[in-house]
Amino acid sequence: MKVAIIGAGNVATHLVAAFKETNLVVAQIWSQHYENALLLARNNDSVAIHDLSEINQSLDICLISVKDDAIEDVLLKLKGFRGIIAHTSGAIPLDVFEGKFGRYGIFYPLQTFSKSKPVEFNNIPLCLEASDENTFQSLKQLADQISVRVTAVNSDKRKILHLAAVFACNFTNHLYALAEEILAANELPFDIIKPLIIETADKIQYASPIKVQTGPAIRGDEKTIKKHEELLLAHPLWLNIYQTLSESIKKTR
Amino acid sequence: MKVAIIGAGNVATHLVAAFKETNLVVAQIWSQHYENALLLARNNDSVAIHDLSEINQSLDICLISVKDDAIEDVLLKLKGFRGIIAHTSGAIPLDVFEGKFGRYGIFYPLQTFSKSKPVEFNNIPLCLEASDENTFQSLKQLADQISVRVTAVNSDKRKILHLAAVFACNFTNHLYALAEEILAANELPFDIIKPLIIETADKIQYASPIKVQTGPAIRGDEKTIKKHEELLLAHPLWLNIYQTLSESIKKTR
Repeated sequence: MKVAIIGAGNVATHLVAAFKETNLVVAQIWSQHYENALLLARNNDSVAIHDLSEINQSLDICLISVKDDAIEDVLLKLKGFRGIIAHTSGAIPLDVFEGKFGRYGIFYPLQTFSKSKPVEFNNIPLCLEASDENTFQSLKQLADQISVRVTAVNSDKRKILHLAAVFACNFTNHLYALAEEILAANELPFDIIKPLIIETADKIQYASPIKVQTGPAIRGDEKTIKKHEELLLAHPLWLNIYQTLSESIKKTR
Repeated sequence: MKVAIIGAGNVATHLVAAFKETNLVVAQIWSQHYENALLLARNNDSVAIHDLSEINQSLDICLISVKDDAIEDVLLKLKGFRGIIAHTSGAIPLDVFEGKFGRYGIFYPLQTFSKSKPVEFNNIPLCLEASDENTFQSLKQLADQISVRVTAVNSDKRKILHLAAVFACNFTNHLYALAEEILAANELPFDIIKPLIIETADKIQYASPIKVQTGPAIRGDEKTIKKHEELLLAHPLWLNIYQTLSESIKKTR
């Protein structure tokens, strides 16, 4: 299978590395910033291209992994590509390809990626969707090489997955950031709550989160809630978050 | 060192088990519900007592690990205890002991505990505070046996720690619960985002969370935010959480 990657951001970087580990060398890499494509290509025995018109028409699959709002522009420039074209976004529906390409699909890894941190790709759910069964099977063949968790997910369900991921990942990370700020403002090291953060995430691997909810809101411990609110008086935005989430937790009692 | 544990809840259960692993058998266990004390005592070669008046006055340390609002009542019944008395709460200040006991302190494990899930106690930060240096050293001697992360934390800082833990653990778990509900409402399994949850918690072990924030709010991707808001229209409380947290993330850009 011969593959090109369009993009050199977090997702693209990890995909190229995961493919390389299975001895699938990505044939071509393009990025809006040529230097980024060059760097990624050099690290992975691939070839960087300056312009999307240089894409090799004999490639089997072209994976687009750019920012959501850059996808349409990239698609215009790739119009007429003869292989399978697919994007890796959680939010952009399949019909973005309609009328422009013959065989197309989605290749969405449900994970958060940072360039600096390696991930075990094998365990990452890869959510696939395609224009037709034959194309789906080709994408699946590629996906199976890097993950044991390949699933068919249509665009409507993928939208929901993406929304759930915002709650479980993006918002969660923001709460970590707020905790770090609260600690730093009181000269306490963030390190001290890191074991708690890991344990909280680990616990729901085995139990439904609603069943292991702890803390003052679920206990209805109004005394502690009031003390916490007083500590947050100087930060109306944090106080609002505290109250909004505490109210929501109380509703699950 | 001879120790009693007052309480048989999540924290008490894990403390008794951690002590047992270091061959320190807890001498006596009391619980508001005698059966719970009995069960915990039986599993750990300890002795359950019916009444707090049965507490052995020659014990070195009596650790109170009951609900916050039950602490004062327990203290009344233990008045006159001759050893060191300490509680394990994050929210109750040291002065709760004042005037009632000679030597007292705090023995606060900064972790979330569920009875059904074993934890590696060795890595859990144990936050200590005491009435005097000599008492502190005795509590530290006990703490050092079960954890390598023993720290002195005064009542003011402990309050902050507890508040930060609510953000990083209790609120985070609630976001997991909301994600599970959102997925379930659309017939998607919670399992599919578990790797994402682990990776999100794992990532901040090595990087400051503010530096690894991802998602539509930090990118300023208003199109996706709007689509998500539309998906949440039927759930005003969830929509409110989505908007409150997204606004807060945008402020960190």
